[in-house]
Amino acid sequence: MQTPTPRTRVIREPQRGVYDKETAYAILDEGFICHVGFVADAQPFVIPTSYGRVNDTLYIHGSAASRMLRNLDKGIAVCVTVTLLDGLVLARSIFNHSMNYRSVVVLGTAAVVTDPAEKLEALRRISEHIIPGRWVDSRLPTEKELKATSVLRLPIEEFSAKVRQGGPIDDEEDYTFPTWSGVIPLEMTAGEPVNDDRLLPGQTVPSYALRYTRKR
Amino acid sequence: MQTPTPRTRVIREPQRGVYDKETAYAILDEGFICHVGFVADAQPFVIPTSYGRVNDTLYIHGSAASRMLRNLDKGIAVCVTVTLLDGLVLARSIFNHSMNYRSVVVLGTAAVVTDPAEKLEALRRISEHIIPGRWVDSRLPTEKELKATSVLRLPIEEFSAKVRQGGPIDDEEDYTFPTWSGVIPLEMTAGEPVNDDRLLPGQTVPSYALRYTRKR
Repeated sequence: MQTPTPRTRVIREPQRGVYDKETAYAILDEGFICHVGFVADAQPFVIPTSYGRVNDTLYIHGSAASRMLRNLDKGIAVCVTVTLLDGLVLARSIFNHSMNYRSVVVLGTAAVVTDPAEKLEALRRISEHIIPGRWVDSRLPTEKELKATSVLRLPIEEFSAKVRQGGPIDDEEDYTFPTWSGVIPLEMTAGEPVNDDRLLPGQTVPSYALRYTRKR
Repeated sequence: MQTPTPRTRVIREPQRGVYDKETAYAILDEGFICHVGFVADAQPFVIPTSYGRVNDTLYIHGSAASRMLRNLDKGIAVCVTVTLLDGLVLARSIFNHSMNYRSVVVLGTAAVVTDPAEKLEALRRISEHIIPGRWVDSRLPTEKELKATSVLRLPIEEFSAKVRQGGPIDDEEDYTFPTWSGVIPLEMTAGEPVNDDRLLPGQTVPSYALRYTRKR
């Protein structure tokens, strides 16, 4: 159990705040797209990108970070947010409508990974985070490609999670209001893999692509 | 066609940059969760929340903005990002792995909606944006509830979209590399609605909950 800092304490709907690593890491491991926030010339920017978790470190794919990385040499203050949407919650009153979701916010200083071995390993972990098994089936990065890729390292130290699950919670007097009420479950689902036009003969869809899911 | 500003011009993979309103608005209309970035005490924060679009204005549900709104009276610089994930793109080389997605970034100054009539209408539009038809089936907000809700208004003036669709694009020499290559399509899907435990007799699932989809 982590003690929230004044910056990570959940203010609105504080009962939804979760500060234990287990919950936060399960959310980070189910997701694979984060929204990275940073500041450039007093303007906040929020960019979606992929990431992977290695113990208490987030590795963030830097493709989205070109604007951020322009003048970066000693690290930059970031907020990395991962949101999993689980459903729409239809209450009787508009006011009590809600969503079921699980989200994590990590604050800290992100640094560019410069060591080539760490960078290669970070990319492998990001790749395995997104599609376990794909790395060894691929043509691995050349030195030139590695140089053209940037990866950020962010220690997971200051974080909080926020979780809302379950049915609607209406005010007691609204339970007689005559309307349907309940939850529309939402999830991200994978469709049938689509072969590339130039597939070599004999190449069949690998199992990690056939039954792709984020559930662990 | 909008001319991108230095702040919204897509830097990385510039061929994916899209600056016309039609594309950007279609993305904003298909999504309903945005990630709002703002700065507090030099620290960026990124918070997921819901929104609705009314012509050239984004209305953002302020439930997530408690931290942001603390000392707010004249508006705050924000970045609102909406990301739709369409698939994983498995190339032959790790370097050319990608994702299919559509995203929009809107920069500007968000202001709190104070006029009660505008706030009520903004909430209606956010509600209709998320589940068309739900507003009139619900117990509408009281004055007290309206006061307890905050809504932000953000003009959609400075924005860019980024779109990647289609199959993998490998380096020519990699097309002989013996691995499967293609796309795993991803989409957000709705499951069977779950009745609330305290549903009144005779209340059946409305059509907007039965076949919920974001496709327009």
